[in-house]
Amino acid sequence: MDSRRAEAASRTFVLPIRVYLEDTDAQGVVYNASYFRFMERARTEWLRAQGVDHDRLRQEHGIALVLASIEAKFKAPARLSDVLYVSAEMIGASGARVVFEQKVRRGGEDGQLVCQGRAEVACMDAALGKPRRIPATLTSEGK
Amino acid sequence: MDSRRAEAASRTFVLPIRVYLEDTDAQGVVYNASYFRFMERARTEWLRAQGVDHDRLRQEHGIALVLASIEAKFKAPARLSDVLYVSAEMIGASGARVVFEQKVRRGGEDGQLVCQGRAEVACMDAALGKPRRIPATLTSEGK
Amino acid sequence: MDSRRAEAASRTFVLPIRVYLEDTDAQGVVYNASYFRFMERARTEWLRAQGVDHDRLRQEHGIALVLASIEAKFKAPARLSDVLYVSAEMIGASGARVVFEQKVRRGGEDGQLVCQGRAEVACMDAALGKPRRIPATLTSEGK
Amino acid sequence: MDSRRAEAASRTFVLPIRVYLEDTDAQGVVYNASYFRFMERARTEWLRAQGVDHDRLRQEHGIALVLASIEAKFKAPARLSDVLYVSAEMIGASGARVVFEQKVRRGGEDGQLVCQGRAEVACMDAALGKPRRIPATLTSEGK
Repeated sequence: MDSRRAEAASRTFVLPIRVYLEDTDAQGVVYNASYFRFMERARTEWLRAQGVDHDRLRQEHGIALVLASIEAKFKAPARLSDVLYVSAEMIGASGARVVFEQKVRRGGEDGQLVCQGRAEVACMDAALGKPRRIPATLTSEGK
Repeated sequence: MDSRRAEAASRTFVLPIRVYLEDTDAQGVVYNASYFRFMERARTEWLRAQGVDHDRLRQEHGIALVLASIEAKFKAPARLSDVLYVSAEMIGASGARVVFEQKVRRGGEDGQLVCQGRAEVACMDAALGKPRRIPATLTSEGK
Repeated sequence: MDSRRAEAASRTFVLPIRVYLEDTDAQGVVYNASYFRFMERARTEWLRAQGVDHDRLRQEHGIALVLASIEAKFKAPARLSDVLYVSAEMIGASGARVVFEQKVRRGGEDGQLVCQGRAEVACMDAALGKPRRIPATLTSEGK
Repeated sequence: MDSRRAEAASRTFVLPIRVYLEDTDAQGVVYNASYFRFMERARTEWLRAQGVDHDRLRQEHGIALVLASIEAKFKAPARLSDVLYVSAEMIGASGARVVFEQKVRRGGEDGQLVCQGRAEVACMDAALGKPRRIPATLTSEGK
C-alpha cells in the first residue's frame, strides 16, 4: 500500500453497529435520531483511531470538539437485528473546522446505503469557549 | 387577524420542551441527537394541530409519513433545566414531499436561537411502500 | 383541605407525558428504558415543585442527588400517542436517602396502571462524593 | 470443561459496551436509563447465543418476549469512554417466566461492579397476547 492510500485509509473509520430494540420505533424501523447517535459513535472511534479521545483532547490540548452542523439523507430503512456499518471519513479541514462524510450501510461495508450524512465539527478552546485551530495530530498535515 | 395571517399561523406550531438529564451529555450541554427527537416531537404536534396523527393517517388514508432528510445547524448550547421552544413550520409541499423549517429557541418563543433545522418528509403509501401524493388536509390547499 | 392532606399532596407530583416515536420500539409499544426516563422527569418536577432543581441544590447546598436503585413492574403496554400520567410520591426519607413510589397511568390520573416503580435517591456531598443528610427543604420536616 | 460447567457457561453472556456521549448526562456520568438499554442488549445477545432472536421467536414459535419487571442497584458511576462488561445470566425459568441476573462491570469481566440488575422476562403468545410456556430451546431442559 503506498503512502497516499495509507493516508486515505487513516482518514476513514468503519464501525459495525448491531440494531437493538432501543434503536427502533413503532413504525418497525430504526428511528431517525438513532442514526445521529450511530454517526457520533463512528466519529468518536475515528478520533480514537488517531490516538486521542475527548478527555485527552481536553486535558492535553485544552480543546473541546463540538458539532457545528449535521445533515442526513435517509435512503432505505434499517430494522431490528440488522448489522449496520457506519463510516466516518474526514473529507476536509480548515482553520477550526473538520468536515466528515458519513455513510451507514447494511449487512456489510459494501452493503446497501441506508443513510448518508455530513458532519461539521468545530474545534473550540475549552477554557475560552472560542474557535481554535485544529491540532495537526487530527489532520494529515501532522503525519 | 386576516385569513392570510391565520393560514400562516396554522402552518407553524411551537412546542415548549423542558430539558431533562436524559437530553444532556457529559459535555454539560444538550446532546446533538436530542435536538432531532425534539424536532420530531414538534412535527408530530404540528400534525396533530392539523387534526390528524400517525395512526389516523395510516388507518384512514393508508399513509405513512417518513423522514427523507434532515439537517441541523447548532448555534448555541442549551443546558439542563432550560425550556426550549421548538417550532415546526411547513414552508413547502409538492407531490409526495413536505418541507419543514424548524427552530429551537431558549427561554421564550423569541429567545436565543439554539438550533436551526430543515426536515423533508415523504408521504408513502403504507401498503405499497411507494411515494404518494400528500392529502390536501395536510396542506393549505384543502382549506 | 386540612394541613395533613395538603402535606400529602405536596409529596406527590403527577406529570402528563405524551408518547412520541422516540419512546416506542419495533414491538409497537413503549420501550422499557423509556419508563425510566419518564420516571426521572417526574422526580425532577417533584423537586422543582419543592422550589429547587439540580443546579440550585449543587450551588446553594453543595449537594448532588444520585439514583441509588430503581425498580419497575410492567403491568400493561403503552403505545404511540398515548398520554401517560407519571407520578412521583415521596414515601420515605431517612439519613441520606429519599424513597419515591412512582406510577405510570394511561389516559388520566386514575387511568389504567401501566408501570409501577420505586426509586431510591441518595443525597451526596458534591465535593466530597460522600453521602450527606438530606436538607429539610426536601422533606416535610422543614415545613 | 465438563458438561455442567459448559451448561453454566451457556447460561451466561457477557457483552462489552463502550460508553459514548449519548449514554452520559450533564452530571458527567452514565445516565441511569442507559443501563437498562445496556442490559437489554446483553439479554438480546444471550438470546442470539442460544440460536434465536426476536424475529425467529415470533415467526417460528409465535412467541414474543416481554419484560415483566426489572430492577437495578447502582454501585459506582461509569464515565465517558469506559468499556463496560454487561452480563446476562439465566438464573431461573418456570412456566412462562425467565429470570436473568445482570451485572455491569467496568474495565474488564472481573472489573469494578457498577450496576447490578435482575430482569424477569415473560414469554407471550404473540397472537393471543397471553402468557405461554417457554420453549425448551431457551432453557437448559432442552439440551
